[in-house]
Amino acid sequence: MINIDSFGIIGGDKRQLAMAKTIACDGYSVYLSGFQRLEQLLGTFGGSGPVEETALFSQCVILPLPVTKDGKNLNAPFSDKKIPLDDDFAKLLQGKYIFCAMKDSLLKTSKLWDKNMVFDYLNREELQVFNSVPTAEGAIEVAMREYLGTINGSKCLVAGFGRIGKVLANMLNGLGATVYVSARKKHDLAWIKLLGYEPVDNSGLQDSGEYDIIFNTVPAMIFDAHVLAKTALNAIVIDLASMPGGVDFDSAKRMGIPTVHALSLPGKVAPKTSGEIIKNTIFNIIEEEKL
Amino acid sequence: MINIDSFGIIGGDKRQLAMAKTIACDGYSVYLSGFQRLEQLLGTFGGSGPVEETALFSQCVILPLPVTKDGKNLNAPFSDKKIPLDDDFAKLLQGKYIFCAMKDSLLKTSKLWDKNMVFDYLNREELQVFNSVPTAEGAIEVAMREYLGTINGSKCLVAGFGRIGKVLANMLNGLGATVYVSARKKHDLAWIKLLGYEPVDNSGLQDSGEYDIIFNTVPAMIFDAHVLAKTALNAIVIDLASMPGGVDFDSAKRMGIPTVHALSLPGKVAPKTSGEIIKNTIFNIIEEEKL
Amino acid sequence: MINIDSFGIIGGDKRQLAMAKTIACDGYSVYLSGFQRLEQLLGTFGGSGPVEETALFSQCVILPLPVTKDGKNLNAPFSDKKIPLDDDFAKLLQGKYIFCAMKDSLLKTSKLWDKNMVFDYLNREELQVFNSVPTAEGAIEVAMREYLGTINGSKCLVAGFGRIGKVLANMLNGLGATVYVSARKKHDLAWIKLLGYEPVDNSGLQDSGEYDIIFNTVPAMIFDAHVLAKTALNAIVIDLASMPGGVDFDSAKRMGIPTVHALSLPGKVAPKTSGEIIKNTIFNIIEEEKL
Amino acid sequence: MINIDSFGIIGGDKRQLAMAKTIACDGYSVYLSGFQRLEQLLGTFGGSGPVEETALFSQCVILPLPVTKDGKNLNAPFSDKKIPLDDDFAKLLQGKYIFCAMKDSLLKTSKLWDKNMVFDYLNREELQVFNSVPTAEGAIEVAMREYLGTINGSKCLVAGFGRIGKVLANMLNGLGATVYVSARKKHDLAWIKLLGYEPVDNSGLQDSGEYDIIFNTVPAMIFDAHVLAKTALNAIVIDLASMPGGVDFDSAKRMGIPTVHALSLPGKVAPKTSGEIIKNTIFNIIEEEKL
Repeated sequence: MINIDSFGIIGGDKRQLAMAKTIACDGYSVYLSGFQRLEQLLGTFGGSGPVEETALFSQCVILPLPVTKDGKNLNAPFSDKKIPLDDDFAKLLQGKYIFCAMKDSLLKTSKLWDKNMVFDYLNREELQVFNSVPTAEGAIEVAMREYLGTINGSKCLVAGFGRIGKVLANMLNGLGATVYVSARKKHDLAWIKLLGYEPVDNSGLQDSGEYDIIFNTVPAMIFDAHVLAKTALNAIVIDLASMPGGVDFDSAKRMGIPTVHALSLPGKVAPKTSGEIIKNTIFNIIEEEKL
Repeated sequence: MINIDSFGIIGGDKRQLAMAKTIACDGYSVYLSGFQRLEQLLGTFGGSGPVEETALFSQCVILPLPVTKDGKNLNAPFSDKKIPLDDDFAKLLQGKYIFCAMKDSLLKTSKLWDKNMVFDYLNREELQVFNSVPTAEGAIEVAMREYLGTINGSKCLVAGFGRIGKVLANMLNGLGATVYVSARKKHDLAWIKLLGYEPVDNSGLQDSGEYDIIFNTVPAMIFDAHVLAKTALNAIVIDLASMPGGVDFDSAKRMGIPTVHALSLPGKVAPKTSGEIIKNTIFNIIEEEKL
Repeated sequence: MINIDSFGIIGGDKRQLAMAKTIACDGYSVYLSGFQRLEQLLGTFGGSGPVEETALFSQCVILPLPVTKDGKNLNAPFSDKKIPLDDDFAKLLQGKYIFCAMKDSLLKTSKLWDKNMVFDYLNREELQVFNSVPTAEGAIEVAMREYLGTINGSKCLVAGFGRIGKVLANMLNGLGATVYVSARKKHDLAWIKLLGYEPVDNSGLQDSGEYDIIFNTVPAMIFDAHVLAKTALNAIVIDLASMPGGVDFDSAKRMGIPTVHALSLPGKVAPKTSGEIIKNTIFNIIEEEKL
Repeated sequence: MINIDSFGIIGGDKRQLAMAKTIACDGYSVYLSGFQRLEQLLGTFGGSGPVEETALFSQCVILPLPVTKDGKNLNAPFSDKKIPLDDDFAKLLQGKYIFCAMKDSLLKTSKLWDKNMVFDYLNREELQVFNSVPTAEGAIEVAMREYLGTINGSKCLVAGFGRIGKVLANMLNGLGATVYVSARKKHDLAWIKLLGYEPVDNSGLQDSGEYDIIFNTVPAMIFDAHVLAKTALNAIVIDLASMPGGVDFDSAKRMGIPTVHALSLPGKVAPKTSGEIIKNTIFNIIEEEKL
């Protein structure tokens, strides 16, 4: 089905390295660049070579997540030198299928990129779905570490019923917690109820009682001082929403409520799984686009 | 129902302190001794007093788990001085209902103990059952921390289907792992199958495939070099069996298999829950014995 | 919140009667018409009165699901005479809030209807979500009755991962079946996998093995002779898709494969729950529309 | 491992026939007697032959569950004539391994039986465990048929936490019911709680609220008029305990509470699974006894 037989992986963190391994295990040729500082983990790949070489031998090149943090250089924390994103870099990769996260920030770095050859794996729904698993598990790991009781038997609130809220509620229930889930839409509340959780209408959150552990997944200021005072005085609060999050951290601190703002969990807690997710997503794109 | 209205808690760790709090929350008078080094956590109790005073005011005295580690002194890690277990101590507590873990080691310390007044909460089945929860969660927390992938989607083996094996399999399944459970008895294998796990007959353990995460709960040398080589080469192994455990740690090290020997998890991972478990067990005894 | 205090329920089956009871239990005045042939069940309502009277006393009038079967008369199977849907009927209900299923077929029966006063409860997402529960349970009841083995331990295929597929897979899994779910979209397959089911890509359905029980939820000819021959030779097939369904029933018969085309399950298997679902949906509309 | 290669199956119901098929599928020679009235289902076996022939060709003979109902004849409801249990029958089977349910009632029918050659499969723990599955599913099927609502969202009580209670609670929970389980022992209540059900101490059953569906598994008069009046006025009651059961059926009738006394469910609801369970148990005996 797939005609491609060689992959170059340039830059990224341990996730990308885990991805490289799983691609190599499938029998493809894999070339690495930008991993010099992980040299001891690279045995089977014969080390991390120069970008030129990786580009030369690879039909596909996979760039990291995100592709850049400063808009100028590749996001390559384990490289021994910077890898500038410029016309030279784009020229080097001409004619290759490029996979990256946040395609737009790559395209801005040079006019030489052929945007039809660049594919974004981060905006694929299946990657987002799968990524909710390490995020939810990471959140549970934090809760287990910080909470003085057990999840089993505790009263947990999950604010928000998007991908992460769905997975988290399912796992907490599987551990034996009493799970409350807050949402706004009536049909989300219907799902919450029929799946065996306690539905909490967002508008009545502050009157829904006190919790042991609160997980926020909503990127909006839901847990302000008022709501915290009514629900969280004996709880720990774990915020999974991206910056600035959905918790009034200052008020929480003042009230003595322990909080954790847990971000970018997939790469941190489960690089192996995260790498496999990225790989599977890229292979889905290759299949659908008939590359 | 219960006529007792005052409890003395002498010695022990944060579990005993958590227990003290939950007893006090129920409205009983609670006196503490042997917690001077946790002074800042004792606000509501007015501090940790002398043993004589605690003994004087309490109808029941709760001693720690285990009651002694050296056979001579009370197990009181947060006390500022040793509390010897001798005739004086026994005399001081005469006429009180005494609750402790490992009653026999207490009785050996003095002939003055009235064994009809001493109750062992550790050998109660319901405490053992409830304690399997923090043990299982603690094991999962270790797995989440050490394993590079997610529990969800991983292939886990739980060796042994006693209390801890049962709870652990249930929780791993609830997180979305593929759960294999090994046992010897046919009817245990029946339960394993009907609960949706994969049954593995102990006698065929070495031929049951390779795993991502292995949890041992059996206090016998099950994971010797041979079994490790067939099942664990790409796994992490978490041993929950009491010393010396059920894993050949030397061979594992030689093969590069990461291992964790996780002991005494309840007190470490969930002092609050553990304290409540001890309290509930003691109250069950009080009720049944009509004290 | 809700200013309405009187409801008229005209026509419908046992669901509507169950709905009437739960509304009355909430303390509202409830008037019935078109239920003469269920007279013995109507005790608390003082019987089924003339439509004129019900109309007179009610602020809201709830019409059945569907509102009409022939386009001319109200769907009132337990009425002792036909209730024509004409200008007279529309005039009688003027000024009332009307709730019905399939609003358009009602509006066609007279020009006197004020469409701003007519609300359709069937097209509400939360009703569709909740209705998937009696549908899924009804399907399981059929499977339990027809299949010679137990659901626990059986190998089940759920074709389609819409509302009904999601609920059905969850319940079958909860009973201990091995659950395969087929879908087309990659992100649906991602959900299927992470929830612990076996994902089957629609395109590979015919190669996915043989099943014990097959549930189809997709309204398209998925189970043609070819697919049946590869997956269903030892199975029973339960089709939940609306007419004409998704199974080649003739071929199935020829191959000796037992089939059940199970339609309109909610009203049949769980009139009480179905009535409560309709009631809750109507109350959601009243709240949102501030009636 | 197993040296036996031929099985005779004499008498019994559809379970025994299902068992015969699964043994034949494993490649063993199987001979049948006492199934003349199921002739049309016997195609692959070449019909149901005379007992003498079956005895002649079989190393093992499997007798039904129970082996006799009247103490005089074999339990063979599909035989066209009676098969007396007497010296002739015992002589015919001399030298064979005999498997039956309720060994004692067989041994009483003749002094010629060699009790070392007769094995009872019904008193094996793994059969009892597995049989709780069709019993629990059968109970759920009854509940689905009789209850006007859905199991999902209903409030169910399971009285008793033996094998059937455990499986039933697990399945009801998997369907999304709110599950209460009553028990007497503290450690059973501990298990009930940690598995996520609501524990009800037997002594407080009558004060535990009202239920939608009540399942009794305890063979003792638990649901007397008083308890029924406090818990079951709006419930249906399904009694799974063997005669006389644990429900005061007369009082229930007087109070208008629907009841079902559901007995011998495995053979009725799932002959296929029940047959496989018997077969697996017999094969376990063969293996353990090294026959």
